[in-house]
Amino acid sequence: MTSSDPTGGKLVRNQGVTAPLGFRAAGIAAGIKASGRPDLALVFSEGPEYSAAGVFTRNQVKAAPVLWSQQVLKGGRVRAVILNSGGANACTGPGGFQDTHTTAEELAKALSNWGTETGAGEIAVCSTGLIGDRLPMDKLLPAVTEIVHEMGGGLSGGTDAAHAIMTTDTVPKEAAFHHRDKWNVGGMAKGAGMLAPSLATMLVVLTTDAVATPEQLDRALRNATRRTFDRLDVDGSCSTNDTVLLLANGASEVVPTQEELDAAVLAVCDDLAAQLMADAEGVTKRVLVTVTGAVDEDQALVGARAVARDSLVKTAFFGSDPNWGRVLAAIGIAPITLDPDRISVSFNGSPVCVNGMGAPGAREVDLSGADIHVVIDLGLGEGSATIRTTDLSHGYVEENSAYSS
Amino acid sequence: MTSSDPTGGKLVRNQGVTAPLGFRAAGIAAGIKASGRPDLALVFSEGPEYSAAGVFTRNQVKAAPVLWSQQVLKGGRVRAVILNSGGANACTGPGGFQDTHTTAEELAKALSNWGTETGAGEIAVCSTGLIGDRLPMDKLLPAVTEIVHEMGGGLSGGTDAAHAIMTTDTVPKEAAFHHRDKWNVGGMAKGAGMLAPSLATMLVVLTTDAVATPEQLDRALRNATRRTFDRLDVDGSCSTNDTVLLLANGASEVVPTQEELDAAVLAVCDDLAAQLMADAEGVTKRVLVTVTGAVDEDQALVGARAVARDSLVKTAFFGSDPNWGRVLAAIGIAPITLDPDRISVSFNGSPVCVNGMGAPGAREVDLSGADIHVVIDLGLGEGSATIRTTDLSHGYVEENSAYSS
Repeated sequence: MTSSDPTGGKLVRNQGVTAPLGFRAAGIAAGIKASGRPDLALVFSEGPEYSAAGVFTRNQVKAAPVLWSQQVLKGGRVRAVILNSGGANACTGPGGFQDTHTTAEELAKALSNWGTETGAGEIAVCSTGLIGDRLPMDKLLPAVTEIVHEMGGGLSGGTDAAHAIMTTDTVPKEAAFHHRDKWNVGGMAKGAGMLAPSLATMLVVLTTDAVATPEQLDRALRNATRRTFDRLDVDGSCSTNDTVLLLANGASEVVPTQEELDAAVLAVCDDLAAQLMADAEGVTKRVLVTVTGAVDEDQALVGARAVARDSLVKTAFFGSDPNWGRVLAAIGIAPITLDPDRISVSFNGSPVCVNGMGAPGAREVDLSGADIHVVIDLGLGEGSATIRTTDLSHGYVEENSAYSS
Repeated sequence: MTSSDPTGGKLVRNQGVTAPLGFRAAGIAAGIKASGRPDLALVFSEGPEYSAAGVFTRNQVKAAPVLWSQQVLKGGRVRAVILNSGGANACTGPGGFQDTHTTAEELAKALSNWGTETGAGEIAVCSTGLIGDRLPMDKLLPAVTEIVHEMGGGLSGGTDAAHAIMTTDTVPKEAAFHHRDKWNVGGMAKGAGMLAPSLATMLVVLTTDAVATPEQLDRALRNATRRTFDRLDVDGSCSTNDTVLLLANGASEVVPTQEELDAAVLAVCDDLAAQLMADAEGVTKRVLVTVTGAVDEDQALVGARAVARDSLVKTAFFGSDPNWGRVLAAIGIAPITLDPDRISVSFNGSPVCVNGMGAPGAREVDLSGADIHVVIDLGLGEGSATIRTTDLSHGYVEENSAYSS
């Protein structure tokens, strides 16, 4: 993506939530993680506006901070987001919800003391980590006051925040889009496992200095998540804590069109999704699964997701094995319209299956590189969709067999 | 299961398709497998009756032998089943279907020459192995004649057949049920990966010397597969070749009631399903996932399957990690009625989550043994169901990352 991009701007990495004007951020070690690594992040909007929108996990088992933030977002107004890693605060009952509430109140008090009158109802809370344990509030609450004093307006504050939300992530994820009309969108993300199926297990905070209403932000955010995070599926698991927030402060005084806003938010989300895929737990292959020729886009998406989640397809890719029969078996069980004799498959552009039968040389296709693009043409219609996924490796098993202990 | 079992008989292992009267079987090496191991099996009914029923994969991509055998079973009459390992004959087009047809005709000719007038339309064909390659007919056809001469009526013929259908299986699977009224059911099975979701990736041949119509067999078979093979879910993958056949020859001259037949077939299928789970690819843990308290049995089944398929739950079990939060996250995304605050979970009888919150000592539950029974009580109704699954181990990744190459 370059400055000649039709979206009218330029996408850059290594800039995140503080790339737009009028946002401050920080990341510190509160002592929630036993390792002593950074585990508390703050994103703060200086205004003058505080419009916001959010998208949350569809899991019926929702963490306390999700239940809290959903209520906050109903007002369409957010002044700050406080995020912790080191504990999901999920399945923690009324006590866990009270911990979230207390955290928001503590931050409101600290921000008010710092000079910005803030209510707890303007503060979103996000948590990530192990499910089922209460947070160490004796460490968290003093750190909430501390982080208010730490936050800065430079790019480094955003990067510190991106570091502090990491769990099994190996690198922070940031992206920013600078529109030529002098307004910007920035974002940070975390998430490496439990990635799917409607949003990855992820926390994402997006910021913009554009002038936009909560309704415009909501449209831009849903449009973007539907095409990016919703189509990232590492392991078919969907977490209790998924949260994507978009805050607008109007500091640029520019009012983009809805289409411009949609495109900019989509560009940032798409890049963050690619970064999440590339850093997924145990990943050795970045895999794109595209279904074309489906009767419609929804069916293409269902088919692509079925292949992207198939353990046998994913282990074959880990072994660089062009075992296309497993792709056929996986798509064949998807609840979509199929004619087995019209299915064709290619791996990285090389045909491996044509009209339901093996293509010459199919067993010799070289999949030893880090990127694999599977295209499955159903030969029925115009519907197409792509899912981002990864291989299923020893590293994934290793990392996930020893997480809570 | 003992002779005092309410099903009125006794279940034994190490006896298979030749345990009932009037069945012969054999297993030989035809040279389909490069390893030179046995790869061709035959099950032959001496009659006097040839009633049969079958259940097949629900995958829309069906192997040639499945398409063939579905046609044969429409007649409700089967005299012999020929099964090969070393190649699935799936995604092989019209030529592959012709290979299946030719195999059946060759066997019909050999059986007729041997003294039993047989038509190709009375012969079911099953194949298992790699998807996408044509079978080496130059090796297979001579072996079809050879195996007719090899088949014997003793128990060893059944065991030889059970060996010859193995792929990544490490042991043959046989079970037989001897009813006290002097009739019997025997069976053999293969399947170690691609096990799910409607039937495992499996070939199963069941035989009985009871007198039964195709309709009675069909009822007994569907009743049994619904509760056994359909609830075995190792990796969520469903193959192109799944086939379960039940042949009755009436040689005992006993006419059991439908309920007696149902119970006997269920007992054999249940035991074979347990053997399949215990020998699944890479298994280090045998896992039962039970959902109770669902609003109905169907919802319990959907919930149990969602947990049984969850990669994060399965890797945690590989690590003997009582990470119950992953169970909550997995059940929470199942499309069933839930109240998160009423969900309770136990591991091997130890409560780990009560009413949506962690139980004292939950992190210390010992899961180091080979068997893990997860019980998830939704606290809503009377529906319950159990899925058999396994952990997700390095062995699974290793075996499946180097299958076709």
